[in-house]
Amino acid sequence: MLDMFFDPKSVAIIGAAREPGKLGYAVVDNIIKSGFTGPIYPINPNAAEILGRQCYPSILDVPGHVDLAVITVPARIVATVLDQCGQHGVRGVIIITAGFREIGAEGARMERELIGIAHRYDMRLVGPNVLGMIDTVTPINASFAAGMPKKGTISFMSQSGALCTAILDWADAHGIGFARFISIGNKADVNEIDLLQAWQQDQKTDVIIAYLEGITDGQRFIEVARQVTREKPVIALKSGSTGAGARAASSHTGTLAGSARAYDAAFSQCGVIRAMSVQDLFDYSIAFAYQPLLPGDRIAIVTNAGGPGIMGTDAVENYGLKLASLTQETQAYLAAHLPAAANVHNPIDVLGDALADRYGLAVEAALKDPNVDGVLVILTPQVMTQVVESAQAVCDAVERMKGCGKPVLGCWMGQAITAAGAAVLNEHHIPNYQFPERAAAALKAMSTYRKWRERPPVEIPHVAVDHARVKAIFDKARSENRLALGDFEARDVMEAYGLRLPKSVLAKTPDEAVAAAESMGYPVVLKVASPDILHKSDIGAVKVGLADATQVRDAFDIIMYRAGKYMPNADIWGCTVQEMVAKGKEVIIGMSKDPQFGPLLLFGLGGIYVEVLKDVTFRVAPISRMEATEMISEIRSFPLLRGVRGEKPSDLEAAIDALLRVSQLVTDFPEIVELDVNPLMIHEHGAVAVDMRIILK
Amino acid sequence: MLDMFFDPKSVAIIGAAREPGKLGYAVVDNIIKSGFTGPIYPINPNAAEILGRQCYPSILDVPGHVDLAVITVPARIVATVLDQCGQHGVRGVIIITAGFREIGAEGARMERELIGIAHRYDMRLVGPNVLGMIDTVTPINASFAAGMPKKGTISFMSQSGALCTAILDWADAHGIGFARFISIGNKADVNEIDLLQAWQQDQKTDVIIAYLEGITDGQRFIEVARQVTREKPVIALKSGSTGAGARAASSHTGTLAGSARAYDAAFSQCGVIRAMSVQDLFDYSIAFAYQPLLPGDRIAIVTNAGGPGIMGTDAVENYGLKLASLTQETQAYLAAHLPAAANVHNPIDVLGDALADRYGLAVEAALKDPNVDGVLVILTPQVMTQVVESAQAVCDAVERMKGCGKPVLGCWMGQAITAAGAAVLNEHHIPNYQFPERAAAALKAMSTYRKWRERPPVEIPHVAVDHARVKAIFDKARSENRLALGDFEARDVMEAYGLRLPKSVLAKTPDEAVAAAESMGYPVVLKVASPDILHKSDIGAVKVGLADATQVRDAFDIIMYRAGKYMPNADIWGCTVQEMVAKGKEVIIGMSKDPQFGPLLLFGLGGIYVEVLKDVTFRVAPISRMEATEMISEIRSFPLLRGVRGEKPSDLEAAIDALLRVSQLVTDFPEIVELDVNPLMIHEHGAVAVDMRIILK
Repeated sequence: MLDMFFDPKSVAIIGAAREPGKLGYAVVDNIIKSGFTGPIYPINPNAAEILGRQCYPSILDVPGHVDLAVITVPARIVATVLDQCGQHGVRGVIIITAGFREIGAEGARMERELIGIAHRYDMRLVGPNVLGMIDTVTPINASFAAGMPKKGTISFMSQSGALCTAILDWADAHGIGFARFISIGNKADVNEIDLLQAWQQDQKTDVIIAYLEGITDGQRFIEVARQVTREKPVIALKSGSTGAGARAASSHTGTLAGSARAYDAAFSQCGVIRAMSVQDLFDYSIAFAYQPLLPGDRIAIVTNAGGPGIMGTDAVENYGLKLASLTQETQAYLAAHLPAAANVHNPIDVLGDALADRYGLAVEAALKDPNVDGVLVILTPQVMTQVVESAQAVCDAVERMKGCGKPVLGCWMGQAITAAGAAVLNEHHIPNYQFPERAAAALKAMSTYRKWRERPPVEIPHVAVDHARVKAIFDKARSENRLALGDFEARDVMEAYGLRLPKSVLAKTPDEAVAAAESMGYPVVLKVASPDILHKSDIGAVKVGLADATQVRDAFDIIMYRAGKYMPNADIWGCTVQEMVAKGKEVIIGMSKDPQFGPLLLFGLGGIYVEVLKDVTFRVAPISRMEATEMISEIRSFPLLRGVRGEKPSDLEAAIDALLRVSQLVTDFPEIVELDVNPLMIHEHGAVAVDMRIILK
Repeated sequence: MLDMFFDPKSVAIIGAAREPGKLGYAVVDNIIKSGFTGPIYPINPNAAEILGRQCYPSILDVPGHVDLAVITVPARIVATVLDQCGQHGVRGVIIITAGFREIGAEGARMERELIGIAHRYDMRLVGPNVLGMIDTVTPINASFAAGMPKKGTISFMSQSGALCTAILDWADAHGIGFARFISIGNKADVNEIDLLQAWQQDQKTDVIIAYLEGITDGQRFIEVARQVTREKPVIALKSGSTGAGARAASSHTGTLAGSARAYDAAFSQCGVIRAMSVQDLFDYSIAFAYQPLLPGDRIAIVTNAGGPGIMGTDAVENYGLKLASLTQETQAYLAAHLPAAANVHNPIDVLGDALADRYGLAVEAALKDPNVDGVLVILTPQVMTQVVESAQAVCDAVERMKGCGKPVLGCWMGQAITAAGAAVLNEHHIPNYQFPERAAAALKAMSTYRKWRERPPVEIPHVAVDHARVKAIFDKARSENRLALGDFEARDVMEAYGLRLPKSVLAKTPDEAVAAAESMGYPVVLKVASPDILHKSDIGAVKVGLADATQVRDAFDIIMYRAGKYMPNADIWGCTVQEMVAKGKEVIIGMSKDPQFGPLLLFGLGGIYVEVLKDVTFRVAPISRMEATEMISEIRSFPLLRGVRGEKPSDLEAAIDALLRVSQLVTDFPEIVELDVNPLMIHEHGAVAVDMRIILK
């Protein structure tokens, strides 16, 4: 897939320039220097040759077939040359030129024109507004970046071309290599989803990392990423998460940034590891690229200093990993081979005067220990310390234990002296971190990913529901130009999707209300019935615990009076008489529409606690049974639902069932833009949806 | 203060060695090379001279006065030479030798012996088990570290000598300097408190940083640090915070690590900025050392790339700072002087083709803007980018705006190419960070510290209480060998300290209970009265809402039956008859003893929520009124107390008063090791302590 970019047989540069310093020169120069072996066609009507290659006035004049074209001409003539590419049968085009969607409406129009041309000729398009693409496998450097990275197994996509330059510069200093490296800019055509799919199948890519400012199609992203992450780790840095960040994002690439919570939910649902900073992105990617996946959470630490050993321990535990308990055998072995003052428990302290041999010995012993899943090796540059030899000893120990399937991460602390040791580690693909906390963060990312891989594949359940009945209700509301459903309609919708509701009757008069109350039995609740009044309690239009006919009559009248007074323009149908629901645990199930991921489900503690304690959790719908279960168990007040101090547990299965039914409802009917079931009253047996509201688009 | 260490006139090295590679050689060599100008006396009975300096068999043979002695001889003879130091009138001693408290009981005994000798001769002692001390002001390098750092204004203390080596190595690579640099090891005498006091008065020290594994006297630390932080920032990294980390800490230096929550509370109460990693320590310290304090929270970002600008924005907002709104004037100025495509709002995007001039211009404009408190400058190494010249342009702009009192932080992203620019920034004391997130973290630390400095000094209030009555109760309990107080005693204690309690009478028989209930009025509560039963509800020994005599009699009998059955060995005094307290907001006030900081106060949502929601906050007692107010307002469910959805607010003044009284109680009586008031029922007017327990030491 996308082999016109990642395995082109020939390449043209439209806008090739003779003057060093120009983009069109840099691209030709980079392609030649990268060792690309196919034909290279510079296109420039005013030059006969560039950098020793014959030049053509237009791509239409190129004698052979062109797989890939790189366009650097000014924005106003991009459409023309793109059309010529189409005529000539070019399969892939990288538009480096900027000045499209990111500059406003006119740019957006021009960008749409490009998309139209590409579709017409069945060409794929990268950009516009990009740094270009580097591929160390082919090899080809079709970018204006300074220099080419080393070969490696990490593939990187970035919505920011400038970030690419910083990352290449960083990678250069640390000897980190890449397989494919691509700037996707405005994503007029090729986007993160295409690349995920292409790199899933790419045997040269082991780790996928991405810098994203927005996601083109959230639902499809989840679907595709779920597949890809089963095979390869995907690490993503999403910027523009805060309010101000999101504003900066839309002024930058015209991307509508989704809310941070939606991204957190979505990434966790498809196994994408979320990096919170560029540093995370780097730190995680080298761990995944260089080392086997952490098979469990038990970490051994080898150190030549107590203090940093404690820091490592703190970090390991702060990230939710465990300090391994070494076996008796390992402890005995270490005691026999290390000085008496050494600590043979974990963290293993080989002491300040340790030479390289103790490092080799301790790391090998830790890797052999069945209680250890991974090793963090810390070195401080003390007087006797052999910074380089110790790094080599660790590499040798890892080599001797090859195939043990346990990662080893280094932490050569310092810089001026320790850099030489760090370089040895890097060369042997043992990732090095300047601080123990960073190494622990990388181990944690590995653990998170392993747990994702161990999960069963996501299965979205489907239950039998009365789809037609809901459709009819929505059609009716639309035909009446109403966006908010009335209480009764919302009840009908929920009932059609199988939620349990309290008995409820619409009463137009006090007499009807009394009759209804007597048929369902006292006590009852009365609420105003109106499609226009959403927060009924706020205007005093809900009366609970009504115990006899007089109370029902009084309540009816006062509710009518208040509704008329406070909402004079509301359409008031009367009162809903409702069975009084027994006290249980109040939770909320809600849904709002995220601009990138669509229906975002919410579960949390209900009642006033929703607003005050904000003890809620999110998932993008549709969700699996496992995800529903996790939503319920991950709110802070979950112990309240499970039952504390001898209370009976609530019926969690009923809550899961309700969540899944709501998930199915909002997926089946994308026209629902907001939905609240609050409270859903969970009892020891069953759960009842007490109050609800639905807003349509 | 401590001038025998930081301004010695003469120095002896006891254990000076002739062989390079030995500690005793390295120390002499370092002292000579550091440019120390006073007399240097190597002590070695087997050498005539070392490194060209005359040697003496013992310090007693040194002809002149010795201010400072550095001891490197084996542990078993340290006491002997230390005594000789005393005889010779030495004022300060650094014991580099290890093998004392950190190796177990015998080592601890030997260390106590050293302390005794030092006291006898009125000598101050650094160590044992240290790397030594470096002072770039004097100058003197009385350590076995490799090399001497640059001069600077940061002073550093570390409980780990090995960490010192890593930090020196890091500082060397980044050109960071220090004023004083000291390893304090086992802290037999000189500890973090002594150093805080010494450095508070030290004109050469602007910023104090500390690596601590434990604190010697938590209450005194808070008291001293509160003073020091009014003048200079103190940044501390405390390791051994997690469970496993704390275990590693005690096996390492024999320090009893305090709980993470106590440290968080204590540091916040005395204005110490807590670093969560070595990286934080570095990142914060250079910001404080190099730049003026951030005068407000409004940050301007200057960048040559949109993506990193968004990252910077995200980071600034994630840390609770604000993106500045530039004035119209600034925007107009930028629009007039930058290309049309540049973003003249914040973040200011000078565009990918920006040369150095645009950086200088934008940074100066941002610093001039009255809406801006600090500037973050981001650079990515794009094709045209002038990495070094842009750094110089920023430095020049900062120089032109000298005295504006606003910090400028750099973020030259990358490494291989950008390092040269970062070096220019560092040279001109503009701290550089590889990632925008790190720069934002440093700005946040500055903001936190500024807010601390703006607070009024801490004042501990004292209210009139009945101290004698509490003393009598505790004396009685002790005389009876009881650690847990009975319900009635605890009530008496609370009443003596001015808390409001429900009316309550001890009844030995059902008749007495009925009489009591009738005199206070129904409904009432009955609880078992016993010093041995702490969780009364758990055994069904609490009955609420008793409305008449029959119910009181029944309740009395069933409570007696259950208490006897479930706690057959308990001392049961009868039942407490209590006025039924009106429903209010249930909170908890508690206290437990932290091994390092003493009484740790807790405030939180009470009832079952304490255990489930863990919505609690901590402070070390005694606390000020401001701290009490903050405790109450910082719990998540504070809005519940303030009143939501039209509820009346609770009486927060009453809660503050109760907290202050409990604070005073646990401070006045250190023998209280545990105390719970749960619930404290807060009403619209007043607060009533419903249930309480007190445990003595």
